[in-house]
Amino acid sequence: MPALTLAELQVQLGGTLRGDGSVLLASAASLEQAGPGQLSFVLGQKYLPQARASLAGALVAPETLAADLSGNLLLVADPHATFARALALLYPEPKPDWSIHPGAHLAQDANIGEGCRIGPGSVVESGVVIGPGCQIGPQCYIGPGVRLGADCLLHAGVRILRDCIVGDRAILHPGCIIGSDGFGLAWEADHWVKVPQVGRVVLGDDVEIGANTTIDRGALDDTVIEDGAKLDNQIHVAHNCRIGRHTAIAGCVGIAGSTRIGAYCQIGGAAMIIGHLEICDRVTVSAGSFVAKDIRTPGVYTSVQPLMPHEDWKRNAAHLRHLDSLTKRIRALEKLLKDKA
Amino acid sequence: MPALTLAELQVQLGGTLRGDGSVLLASAASLEQAGPGQLSFVLGQKYLPQARASLAGALVAPETLAADLSGNLLLVADPHATFARALALLYPEPKPDWSIHPGAHLAQDANIGEGCRIGPGSVVESGVVIGPGCQIGPQCYIGPGVRLGADCLLHAGVRILRDCIVGDRAILHPGCIIGSDGFGLAWEADHWVKVPQVGRVVLGDDVEIGANTTIDRGALDDTVIEDGAKLDNQIHVAHNCRIGRHTAIAGCVGIAGSTRIGAYCQIGGAAMIIGHLEICDRVTVSAGSFVAKDIRTPGVYTSVQPLMPHEDWKRNAAHLRHLDSLTKRIRALEKLLKDKA
Amino acid sequence: MPALTLAELQVQLGGTLRGDGSVLLASAASLEQAGPGQLSFVLGQKYLPQARASLAGALVAPETLAADLSGNLLLVADPHATFARALALLYPEPKPDWSIHPGAHLAQDANIGEGCRIGPGSVVESGVVIGPGCQIGPQCYIGPGVRLGADCLLHAGVRILRDCIVGDRAILHPGCIIGSDGFGLAWEADHWVKVPQVGRVVLGDDVEIGANTTIDRGALDDTVIEDGAKLDNQIHVAHNCRIGRHTAIAGCVGIAGSTRIGAYCQIGGAAMIIGHLEICDRVTVSAGSFVAKDIRTPGVYTSVQPLMPHEDWKRNAAHLRHLDSLTKRIRALEKLLKDKA
Repeated sequence: MPALTLAELQVQLGGTLRGDGSVLLASAASLEQAGPGQLSFVLGQKYLPQARASLAGALVAPETLAADLSGNLLLVADPHATFARALALLYPEPKPDWSIHPGAHLAQDANIGEGCRIGPGSVVESGVVIGPGCQIGPQCYIGPGVRLGADCLLHAGVRILRDCIVGDRAILHPGCIIGSDGFGLAWEADHWVKVPQVGRVVLGDDVEIGANTTIDRGALDDTVIEDGAKLDNQIHVAHNCRIGRHTAIAGCVGIAGSTRIGAYCQIGGAAMIIGHLEICDRVTVSAGSFVAKDIRTPGVYTSVQPLMPHEDWKRNAAHLRHLDSLTKRIRALEKLLKDKA
Repeated sequence: MPALTLAELQVQLGGTLRGDGSVLLASAASLEQAGPGQLSFVLGQKYLPQARASLAGALVAPETLAADLSGNLLLVADPHATFARALALLYPEPKPDWSIHPGAHLAQDANIGEGCRIGPGSVVESGVVIGPGCQIGPQCYIGPGVRLGADCLLHAGVRILRDCIVGDRAILHPGCIIGSDGFGLAWEADHWVKVPQVGRVVLGDDVEIGANTTIDRGALDDTVIEDGAKLDNQIHVAHNCRIGRHTAIAGCVGIAGSTRIGAYCQIGGAAMIIGHLEICDRVTVSAGSFVAKDIRTPGVYTSVQPLMPHEDWKRNAAHLRHLDSLTKRIRALEKLLKDKA
Repeated sequence: MPALTLAELQVQLGGTLRGDGSVLLASAASLEQAGPGQLSFVLGQKYLPQARASLAGALVAPETLAADLSGNLLLVADPHATFARALALLYPEPKPDWSIHPGAHLAQDANIGEGCRIGPGSVVESGVVIGPGCQIGPQCYIGPGVRLGADCLLHAGVRILRDCIVGDRAILHPGCIIGSDGFGLAWEADHWVKVPQVGRVVLGDDVEIGANTTIDRGALDDTVIEDGAKLDNQIHVAHNCRIGRHTAIAGCVGIAGSTRIGAYCQIGGAAMIIGHLEICDRVTVSAGSFVAKDIRTPGVYTSVQPLMPHEDWKRNAAHLRHLDSLTKRIRALEKLLKDKA
């Protein structure tokens, strides 16, 4: 790990330096855990008590808190993003000591860009084109005809199936699968016939796909994840979906086939979205919610049950089966009283 | 990819040819995207406008729409299944150029059928029997004593653990795991003791298992997936379950231990089914539903919350904690009015 | 598989032997399936009919049922845990016939303990320390700086990323991922900036992690799974969570970032828990429940919708959007009647 002075960080990150620019920072930690050689950060006013008590060597902090803090500070407009960039400097992605590992299996006609690394056990099939500067971890599978842009990072055990397209700077986490078959079945007489899935998955630039997430290839047309979209772990994206640019999707979400999610959306963890829907730009779906209709207006949408002690739940939940008759009974009472009046 | 004339397709698929049988079809696309050298299909009457506007070289269409369509047609009773078969002809599963790849690790006593292909990095353990015509992708693991039927297709990174049985023509997608341990724990004093899981997984013929789906082995008896059942991605089937023949299960479903699902069922995405239940034949469970009781009558079952704008949800959801008292208040009003009457 | 007499089992397991101690037991089965050479077990009184009808060669049974059973018995205080131990004797984890397989890729400076086995295709990176007696299956990935305790069992395809710590006797199932990046994003102007995840995952002793489960590394501090915790398949644990000792979590559960779950908890399958919560010791969350608030009192908590025939659901669910107005109408009626009285 490189150690940097606060002044060196400021050169790279911008912002206003206050205090001792020569303080050496070798790593980062939370406000509570940080010690003298460590960088930490203050997101906003509500963290002031922890910030003042912190033993951190220096803090990235919002300019607006300049008057409230002392010590070594890098004052910036956007402390979270700036701290993220500082972490990338303090903790550069480790470079393995192999380039193309002899234990990798490469098709003779695979076209591997300059400066790429490919780990042991990885398989690169025929017709693959990999842009310059990609790092492909061990045990990855790059199927026939796949194209990767520049500077992608594939962790161990990523699998991309035939003909899929990945843009520049993709980060693909372990065990994710790009381009598995969609769930296409046609019923015939007394059994299912498999519908071959002949579309592709197309990932834009700056896309991140989490561990063990699966993205199915399109049935006929493509499944598309647009630029800058970020998907967490264990998500399932079915065939022919389109996820808009800069949309962030938290873990365990399921999205059924042909649904289109707009740009700048945030989908909470474990939300489930049925197929053939349109969700417009700038929609937030709360964690655990179930989306069964188009959403045409930006905003926050929710459909979860509140948690209760189990005995309370037993008493209450039974009535959910009778809401319709309950409503009718209220209407009858209202009518009765009105008639009397 | 092979190109076929419409007449050649008709010879293989049946149906009635209309228009120019010599039109050459090299690929397939949706009605909207298809061009002159491409095949498309019409599912039913509601797609007639798109079908008439389509530039496709030929259409697979239902006989019942013969009078409504012109151009090059293959008229059939069942356009979806016929189109699926056409796709299989136009897009044959690519055959890798290796047979048993030298980078595969095979136990000396493994019994590999004629015409099998096994990819680089795959491991086949002792006592394995693989039927003829199987294609086993790269990076697969076939544990000790596993038996595979004929003509199975295992994509990259499939793992089948010791002693499990797979029927003929199985299609196993990347990252799926057949025969992981069930979650068997016995509580003893102050900690859990692992209950060794000594049953197997038995998959019937024509079973398809999706990407990153996991099927646990039985505790003592077996976990069984019957002939023709189709499972999508990211499904979890716990120990000792039985899934009936030709049942289709969409992505992200969880099925807890010892539950038995009948034949010809359809389980919607992200449905969750608790353990030790019986679900009879021909049941449809809606996406996102939670099944906590036996289902003894065929039909469609649902248990999801409707989505609302978050502010509406906050107002409404609080009352779910008080449905019981709400019901009592209605009863009290009814009594009061009845007493007065 | 070893065959053992009932007397030999008693020496190793304790308890009181009744009947013929020389009966040879080669395997185990359920009460219904067991034959003369097989061991079975009786959990309690309600299984007496099956126990009496069983053809098993011997039964592990609770002392309290001594008077109700005949035949060959091992009478113990805790039949489930004792049977679990008997299974471990009858079905010892098979030892592969390789030690360090020549098809494994080991960094020169990796420190591998005595008696370890490492399977083909596995990759052990620089700086790794593996305790004695570990069995690492094929196709595993052990990242730079990872430390494993003694006697761990890693099934095929386990991936542990850089610097994570695993205690003694861990059992890690196929496809699980320890130490993938947390979902850390900072919004900047018009796009997301990745927040590098520099914490670790720390697993205690006797931890079990299910197939395709993912546990994200901490953002700055660590994600911690304490001693004896057991996690089933397809679980997602986000960054900075802490799971208390001897807590058991069933399949398909999602736990969002920085949530702390106490000791001795049981989390039902497919439960979803949002981030930054505290759940105290000895809490049970029912399967399928959604936890969005701290839980400070031990007990059972639930939040699921009851399943209904779809037509009933359609009638009832609509009213969930109007619970607030429904409640107001009841209040109005109550007031009206009170005013009249």
